[in-house]
Amino acid sequence: MNAASLILKKRNGFTLTNAEIDFFIDGYVKGQIPDYQASALLMAIYFQGLDKRETVALTRAMIASGDTIDLASIPGIKVDKHSTGGVGDKTTLILAPLVAALGIPVAKLSGRGLGHTGGTIDKLEAIKGMRVELSQQELVKQVKKIGIAIAAQTGEIVPADKKLYALRDVTATVENKSLIAASIMSKKLASGADAIVLDVKYGDGAFMKTTKDAFELALLLTEIGNGMGKKTVALITGMEQPLGNAIGNALEVKEAIETLQGKGSEDLLELCTELAIQMVLLSGAGKNESAARKKINEALQTGKAFDKLKEFVKAQGGDTRHVENPELLPQAKYSHKILSFQSGYVKMILAESVGNAAMILGAGRMKKEDAIDLSAGILLHKKIGDAVKRGDALATLFSNDKQKFKASEQLLVNAYHFSKRKIKLNPLLIGKVSKGKRTFFEDVRDLK
Amino acid sequence: MNAASLILKKRNGFTLTNAEIDFFIDGYVKGQIPDYQASALLMAIYFQGLDKRETVALTRAMIASGDTIDLASIPGIKVDKHSTGGVGDKTTLILAPLVAALGIPVAKLSGRGLGHTGGTIDKLEAIKGMRVELSQQELVKQVKKIGIAIAAQTGEIVPADKKLYALRDVTATVENKSLIAASIMSKKLASGADAIVLDVKYGDGAFMKTTKDAFELALLLTEIGNGMGKKTVALITGMEQPLGNAIGNALEVKEAIETLQGKGSEDLLELCTELAIQMVLLSGAGKNESAARKKINEALQTGKAFDKLKEFVKAQGGDTRHVENPELLPQAKYSHKILSFQSGYVKMILAESVGNAAMILGAGRMKKEDAIDLSAGILLHKKIGDAVKRGDALATLFSNDKQKFKASEQLLVNAYHFSKRKIKLNPLLIGKVSKGKRTFFEDVRDLK
Repeated sequence: MNAASLILKKRNGFTLTNAEIDFFIDGYVKGQIPDYQASALLMAIYFQGLDKRETVALTRAMIASGDTIDLASIPGIKVDKHSTGGVGDKTTLILAPLVAALGIPVAKLSGRGLGHTGGTIDKLEAIKGMRVELSQQELVKQVKKIGIAIAAQTGEIVPADKKLYALRDVTATVENKSLIAASIMSKKLASGADAIVLDVKYGDGAFMKTTKDAFELALLLTEIGNGMGKKTVALITGMEQPLGNAIGNALEVKEAIETLQGKGSEDLLELCTELAIQMVLLSGAGKNESAARKKINEALQTGKAFDKLKEFVKAQGGDTRHVENPELLPQAKYSHKILSFQSGYVKMILAESVGNAAMILGAGRMKKEDAIDLSAGILLHKKIGDAVKRGDALATLFSNDKQKFKASEQLLVNAYHFSKRKIKLNPLLIGKVSKGKRTFFEDVRDLK
Repeated sequence: MNAASLILKKRNGFTLTNAEIDFFIDGYVKGQIPDYQASALLMAIYFQGLDKRETVALTRAMIASGDTIDLASIPGIKVDKHSTGGVGDKTTLILAPLVAALGIPVAKLSGRGLGHTGGTIDKLEAIKGMRVELSQQELVKQVKKIGIAIAAQTGEIVPADKKLYALRDVTATVENKSLIAASIMSKKLASGADAIVLDVKYGDGAFMKTTKDAFELALLLTEIGNGMGKKTVALITGMEQPLGNAIGNALEVKEAIETLQGKGSEDLLELCTELAIQMVLLSGAGKNESAARKKINEALQTGKAFDKLKEFVKAQGGDTRHVENPELLPQAKYSHKILSFQSGYVKMILAESVGNAAMILGAGRMKKEDAIDLSAGILLHKKIGDAVKRGDALATLFSNDKQKFKASEQLLVNAYHFSKRKIKLNPLLIGKVSKGKRTFFEDVRDLK
């Protein structure tokens, strides 16, 4: 077996055996197969694809490249959640305490990540004192005690993904569903959950631009999960605009707290509720959808979910006063209101542009070494469907550097698209993939 | 401009601008663009192709990566010849003195190369005393004086091709016509000829497996040459079997000498005559094909061509006694006759297998550092169409290491395919591409 012949085989449209895929991933991670052969194979895969069996084999080989987390000693069905990414996505901050409040054990490893804002771990660090570097032992112990723990991913989980992703990023080989699916699922499956709920986004700013693509990816993701013995369900959700009103680390923590208190923005609350329902169903903590929905609403309204957040923050050394009074979270020195030049109804808010605008303000990092300004970000005052008059505030920018407002504002203004007429909103949740079956809840036009 | 975006552009099926191609080749040769981006681009090119303009731009950029030879001070039209490779191809050894004898200046840079046998330079070194390391000045001076010089290529001509070819070889990106064409033509065009005759092979053992592919490559090659102001003509010739009877360095020199004396094998003489005709026509040394053919036959029959070989060998320090008496050329200690197990008519001789059999005997090199055994090789006694009886000698193997006969014999025996019935020979020369026009001389079935 040699790398060049595997590239040739895939280039010519043949399928690779499991042994060949193992050989390639193992050799690549160990540095025996050089980057230039890996990138050629990735490009051949981009054009020829991988079938289902190959994609599962790739996922397995990637998992085998590193450590796996063993959560077996925690009683109950551990349900993990993953979103394919979105601007303003703070659902983990809400879902983790929410489902933990319903008795579902949450033992989550999360990344810092690159992007428009930090990852879940960065966001948690906006809460003073919060300790996110837990050993696996500490993680398990805490979940056994209070039902929830979130810790920073160590460097040892799926090193193959890290190495492959860095290569794909600079060789135009990111956009292949099998490679995307293996990347996502290898990390989820290595993290020890018993069941997985996926939030597959489509639309501007998402990897998948159309509902067709999103369904295809969702099907592949659930096939991999189920194929490896973990019940996996995916929701297909739209991304016509950022999720909720806040984009930026501390701002998102504040919005998550409000949502847990039943005060958050509608779209965010809706998405969290739908994802929580699937988590409850997979965990066995609810018999059917309406029972699950009832429990979730109750946890939000009675304050049980918010209390669980405080318990979680306290257990990891965070200052719960910052949760009770979010004004204590990091605040930017400067703010800047963006006023509308136009009148009309908001038709679309390009999520990608809003994300970039937040990044400029300091909310995200481009390179691993970059520092994040936890207080920087954007609050949107108008969302799709809202009526806007010339001079109304569209959004407020926050930063510790006034100089950054100009470039950020330009992006943000251009992100807003208006219509003269009232807008019929697309539903947020448009479909579901479960047990290999696609359900299309709503017939939406694809965005653009 | 950055490498990743160029890969993306090509991956998505767009054409690259000349400036983008220059940027990539220049950056790659200078080490600013890493191998892994180059291999991804090559694989994208494999799937999406390059159009004519891009292929010419690639050729130009590759030429610009190194030195070019200036032959302008040599009077007359310098016509170069290139073959896309073949087992037993010793045409340069014959054509160079033959056309030089007709007054066409031959100033040729040739490689050692990797493969079943050495390159032209290795073969010349089978003649005792032959000096092949000439400076450019020496080369020009000798051509002015006696009309012919052949020297070893220096490392400075088209370094981009060397680097790219090494990468293509291990990333399954060799088989793309544009990349093949740019590789061939960049080296020819950098070598300073005014006009070029190409011998494009098709069949087993050749890059191009079908006549269709061979015509396409020929068209592309001539378009590049003509597009860069050099009259270029291509012949399409079959490779159903090795060319001539000898495979191996000293053995091929001996066969070349015999051909220049009018005694060579039929197929070899035919191919050399047809290529020489095109060279004579491009140089202006003959008015039309029949006039050119007459001159060529005359040069062979009167000994003018053979005399020119001796003059050339003498000028470069070689021992002309070895040319007059080829028995003095390096001789292997051992020989081994291969007898036929079957009776019938030879239907095909797989050139690739015969090449590998010669390589095993020591005639070629796999790595640059490998030593060649100049005396090793194969003499074929039966060729396509010949009647064979069980027990007849098919071929003789030559080597200085008896141990090597067994593996070589196995390959050679399997290379011969027989038919019960008489064989209708495919013509050697089946077509021509000139001034963008394809001429199909013969309607042949594709091999296999």
